[in-house]
Amino acid sequence: MFQFSESKEGLEVYFENHLILNHRFDEPCFYVGKGDETISAYRGNYAIEDYISFRMPLRDYELVDEESVVFHNHDYRLTCKFSIQDERLVVYFDINKPTNRFWLRLYANRMEKVYGCGIQASYFNLRGKNFPLWTSEPGVGRDKSSLTTFYADLYDKAGGDYYNTYYPETTFISTRKYWVHVDSSAYADFNFKHPKFHELHFWDIPKKIVLEYQKDYLRLIERLTDYTGRPPKLPDFVHDGMILGVQGGTKQVLEYLAKAEEVGVKVNGLWIQDWAGYRFTSFGKRLYWNWVWNSDVYPNLRETIETMKTKNVHFLTYICPFLLQNETLFNEAKALNYLVLNQEGTTYIEDFGEFFCGLVDLTNPEAFNWYKNVIRKNLIGLGVGGWMADFGEYLPVDAVLHNGIDAKLMHNRWPVLWAQCNYEAVKESGKLGEVVYFMRAGGHGSQRYATSLWAGDQSVNWETHDGIPSVIPASLSAGIIGNPFIHSDIGGYTSLHGNIRSKELFGRWVEMSVFSAYMRTHEGNRPSENFQFYHAKDTMTVMARMSALRVALKPYIQEIVSQASEKGYPLQRPLFMHYLNDDSVYDLQYEYLFGPDIYVKPVVKPNVSEQTVYLPDDEWIHLFTNESYSQGTFTVKAPIGYPPVFYRKSSKFAKLFEDITKNFALK
Amino acid sequence: MFQFSESKEGLEVYFENHLILNHRFDEPCFYVGKGDETISAYRGNYAIEDYISFRMPLRDYELVDEESVVFHNHDYRLTCKFSIQDERLVVYFDINKPTNRFWLRLYANRMEKVYGCGIQASYFNLRGKNFPLWTSEPGVGRDKSSLTTFYADLYDKAGGDYYNTYYPETTFISTRKYWVHVDSSAYADFNFKHPKFHELHFWDIPKKIVLEYQKDYLRLIERLTDYTGRPPKLPDFVHDGMILGVQGGTKQVLEYLAKAEEVGVKVNGLWIQDWAGYRFTSFGKRLYWNWVWNSDVYPNLRETIETMKTKNVHFLTYICPFLLQNETLFNEAKALNYLVLNQEGTTYIEDFGEFFCGLVDLTNPEAFNWYKNVIRKNLIGLGVGGWMADFGEYLPVDAVLHNGIDAKLMHNRWPVLWAQCNYEAVKESGKLGEVVYFMRAGGHGSQRYATSLWAGDQSVNWETHDGIPSVIPASLSAGIIGNPFIHSDIGGYTSLHGNIRSKELFGRWVEMSVFSAYMRTHEGNRPSENFQFYHAKDTMTVMARMSALRVALKPYIQEIVSQASEKGYPLQRPLFMHYLNDDSVYDLQYEYLFGPDIYVKPVVKPNVSEQTVYLPDDEWIHLFTNESYSQGTFTVKAPIGYPPVFYRKSSKFAKLFEDITKNFALK
Repeated sequence: MFQFSESKEGLEVYFENHLILNHRFDEPCFYVGKGDETISAYRGNYAIEDYISFRMPLRDYELVDEESVVFHNHDYRLTCKFSIQDERLVVYFDINKPTNRFWLRLYANRMEKVYGCGIQASYFNLRGKNFPLWTSEPGVGRDKSSLTTFYADLYDKAGGDYYNTYYPETTFISTRKYWVHVDSSAYADFNFKHPKFHELHFWDIPKKIVLEYQKDYLRLIERLTDYTGRPPKLPDFVHDGMILGVQGGTKQVLEYLAKAEEVGVKVNGLWIQDWAGYRFTSFGKRLYWNWVWNSDVYPNLRETIETMKTKNVHFLTYICPFLLQNETLFNEAKALNYLVLNQEGTTYIEDFGEFFCGLVDLTNPEAFNWYKNVIRKNLIGLGVGGWMADFGEYLPVDAVLHNGIDAKLMHNRWPVLWAQCNYEAVKESGKLGEVVYFMRAGGHGSQRYATSLWAGDQSVNWETHDGIPSVIPASLSAGIIGNPFIHSDIGGYTSLHGNIRSKELFGRWVEMSVFSAYMRTHEGNRPSENFQFYHAKDTMTVMARMSALRVALKPYIQEIVSQASEKGYPLQRPLFMHYLNDDSVYDLQYEYLFGPDIYVKPVVKPNVSEQTVYLPDDEWIHLFTNESYSQGTFTVKAPIGYPPVFYRKSSKFAKLFEDITKNFALK
Repeated sequence: MFQFSESKEGLEVYFENHLILNHRFDEPCFYVGKGDETISAYRGNYAIEDYISFRMPLRDYELVDEESVVFHNHDYRLTCKFSIQDERLVVYFDINKPTNRFWLRLYANRMEKVYGCGIQASYFNLRGKNFPLWTSEPGVGRDKSSLTTFYADLYDKAGGDYYNTYYPETTFISTRKYWVHVDSSAYADFNFKHPKFHELHFWDIPKKIVLEYQKDYLRLIERLTDYTGRPPKLPDFVHDGMILGVQGGTKQVLEYLAKAEEVGVKVNGLWIQDWAGYRFTSFGKRLYWNWVWNSDVYPNLRETIETMKTKNVHFLTYICPFLLQNETLFNEAKALNYLVLNQEGTTYIEDFGEFFCGLVDLTNPEAFNWYKNVIRKNLIGLGVGGWMADFGEYLPVDAVLHNGIDAKLMHNRWPVLWAQCNYEAVKESGKLGEVVYFMRAGGHGSQRYATSLWAGDQSVNWETHDGIPSVIPASLSAGIIGNPFIHSDIGGYTSLHGNIRSKELFGRWVEMSVFSAYMRTHEGNRPSENFQFYHAKDTMTVMARMSALRVALKPYIQEIVSQASEKGYPLQRPLFMHYLNDDSVYDLQYEYLFGPDIYVKPVVKPNVSEQTVYLPDDEWIHLFTNESYSQGTFTVKAPIGYPPVFYRKSSKFAKLFEDITKNFALK
């Protein structure tokens, strides 16, 4: 199924008659080299520089046998062993001498577009740019022409750029209808700028590359997630309304619940991130990082959880892999030698801004099990329905790990280890499909080990690269490589450098979240300075309407959640996934299909009461007006509570949608 | 005098027993490749991207004969022909097939520092950074952490960075005591980050490299300027006080003169940049770019010039290579086919912000001569003592030139052609040494053709990278490669994005300018919004004192100006030039020697009344207090009008300095 074709210009490699490698003597497919990197870390933000002191094109080749080609130049010899495994092309790489930089060029054509590489919040179609792949804080503003980013850079080295992400991955799909994964956890940089090839760069020699063609995108994702694994189904309760992110103690959160329910909000959960206590720093309200129920702040929590569960209101909490210095979990882990060490062989202490932490060494199987049991006992044992499994991006590059592997090579694997630790805790408790945790950090393997994702800490504003709009490309790019369940903090999170959340922003975010994995609000990093739903009855009215819509959609959502778990199809899908022949949809990144039958274009701009949408070729019904549309560009009314949503007239859920239209009509 | 030494690791090339090239098979000295550049220009600011699609290390070599080595890899063969010419090593390069990217690695050691590469306003010692070499606007703020730069980038793509410069040059000196010049006008990037080599990158194959060792820095500069040429002496009149940059018509400028002289300012010139008229745009006051005396604005100018010359007050004007569209000079040049063309073969029109211009094609000998005669007739013929020969950085990369050479290769040569045009106009008028023009744009050859430089358009503030401090490294780096005469706009120029010039800034700038090629004020781009000397008697008092100091120093200045013209020694010299054995002075860039006997550390910070200085090993006398100092760090008083200046007690001008101390004492 793969073929080598030689000419005087070089060697072409085909897989299922598609050109994969176009190796020419004057433009070789492989380079090896040496680099000396400088990595400066500051609270999860990495300034990375590389000096390439040597770079050698592997210009020549030898066909060793029917499966192997050696690309070489002088004493550098890279053996590529081609094989077919389960209909996929798998190429193993082996280099004859140590080298720490590697470039691979996959054949590309000028019209091709590519998607994926993890959570990408700025650009869904990656063509025309390069994407360094290194898990980190994604940046505040993520746009060098934004004042938010300017100040974040100036004060905290934290402004970020379009490519910074919690979840980078060396996996993408192409409109030439293949998916590809490169097996390397080293720092990588995927460059999609060249018209004739994709240049994939790594700070090691990848073990292998896996590539598969399929006839359409649904099948591609199914096959990709056959390879990566898929998460269990979401628990049913998450569809029964919305989760309120509230804090401040048992009494306080029940008061918020009562207030919301009084206005008719359908509440299925309370996310109490401060279950272990809290503190205030100059950044804002911060949690107390010792992951033990704080019965001072939350008296009677265990009983309350059980009582509320009978009313289908689930409690959710919070955990991360860091432990607050000199507190009980830290002390226990330190005594057991379970914490990551520094170069001096003592505990690696990370500064989080006015508090300090150690990091559980997840490469040590005993430490991994110990922490898994912390999750089982302290979280699952408390009866919670889920939690935020935060962080995972911060493994310091100079850390010393139990498994002896260079921390620079473990850095991108760390989020997956962290996901796996949560996964096994839930699985071994027999709770897969009942308990859901949500992660922002990720890597190859998150598809299997993260029960869901959230899109991270957006700024509480309308900015393209880090405000409400950025959630959509982030969700689509996570989904396209096999993470079907993703949602976001309703209202956003980061309120810094003059950005203060408005009621309007919060309302638009509520709307959008109906059409994501689940709905969950967040008070943000500075709750008292920002808009909160419990201060505004009219906002709670919107929440009541939107949570009721979510409940009304439940039969449809259950179906697409099942599909996601069985086949890997994301809940949020780019239009091209179902409308392959429409050239105009491949660069749309602020609208999507929610399952096969619902089209959504969330309002992510301020001060608008209508929105223009492009509908692909189908018969569409506006969910709130019952008006019919066919292919074309239309402007529809979109006051808050009535986002532009359309369903396919031929959907097998058409009756369900008709009923919704009756009950939720825009008058 | 050069030697090749072979080992199993590679080839070493020595010149006068110094290692020059350390070619190792695993770290070759030469790479060739292919790149596809994207150059976006906006009013002299260039966004440059390069995609290296091929890069080949020339790993192997053959010693062809005693003078030639071929470095090669497969079909790429670079012939290096080594020769000694006038005690210098000259290596000619010849490649066997077309290639548009070239990398050369000169041997370096870890302790080495390098200086030069043209006007460098941020860093004098270039080691540890890379310096793209491409003439352009240098940027407003030039510092991505400055709000000035943020807004300049946002509104005008004009923020710049540490390396942006009007005057880039592929020439530097090393503390290993060599100077080197690479003969290429292509885009280049000199990377001084690596501990073991300097990597010099070019977008063509340079013709040759020239390198010379000497025993000390004075001898190095003398020999370097033997190679580059040197400017004529400055006219004597520039030492007789200060030039006032004033505008607004004959009557107006004579009033300013009278006002200044009344307070005792010694005025040797009036620089009237608006001699051809002016207009207002949103940027500020702009000149009328038709280089013809405007007798409406300046009635009786010719007579006034002659009259004032008898009082040793010289008039200076302004010119640049652009001609205002549809005006007389433009129309004449266009009719003669003397203007640069665009790809369509019609006149290339540049947008300067609310007005448009054509560009004289200086590669056309007839156009060159025509414009030379414009200078001779319209400027020299008017009787002026000099002018600002502005611009030179803007040759568009898509221009079509008379000489048929790619504009990308002419871009860096353009400023030198422009300098040469001015030079020949003056020379052919028999006025070398009598008339002085000042340029900001430059390149290899400016040493000979620019009678003087000025440091460009600083921001009217105290910022490191573009405010008053930046003048000092800019002057030192220009000087170290053979441009001995440089000065700056007193008070700075660019008032944008909230920067408004203060009286204090102006005062400090007056002080500093005493110790530069000459003193000249500027009203800036927005005269009415910024501080002007003629509004403040106390500032004119400082100017009176400082211009008198300048006059008092004249015998000493005449001596160092003669040295400059005969040997290339810069007026402003880094401390290491005379104190070679003091390791602590090699990174000092905000203090300098003015000639061999005066030490100056200008005050470039606001709100200070004293300043700390480091004096190298010598006997020093404070010029205004008569206090003696030897080597060490001292804090001295420095109110405005009394900058920290010391002279060497053993100077042959000691008597002159003693007299100055008596007359200019700080009481």
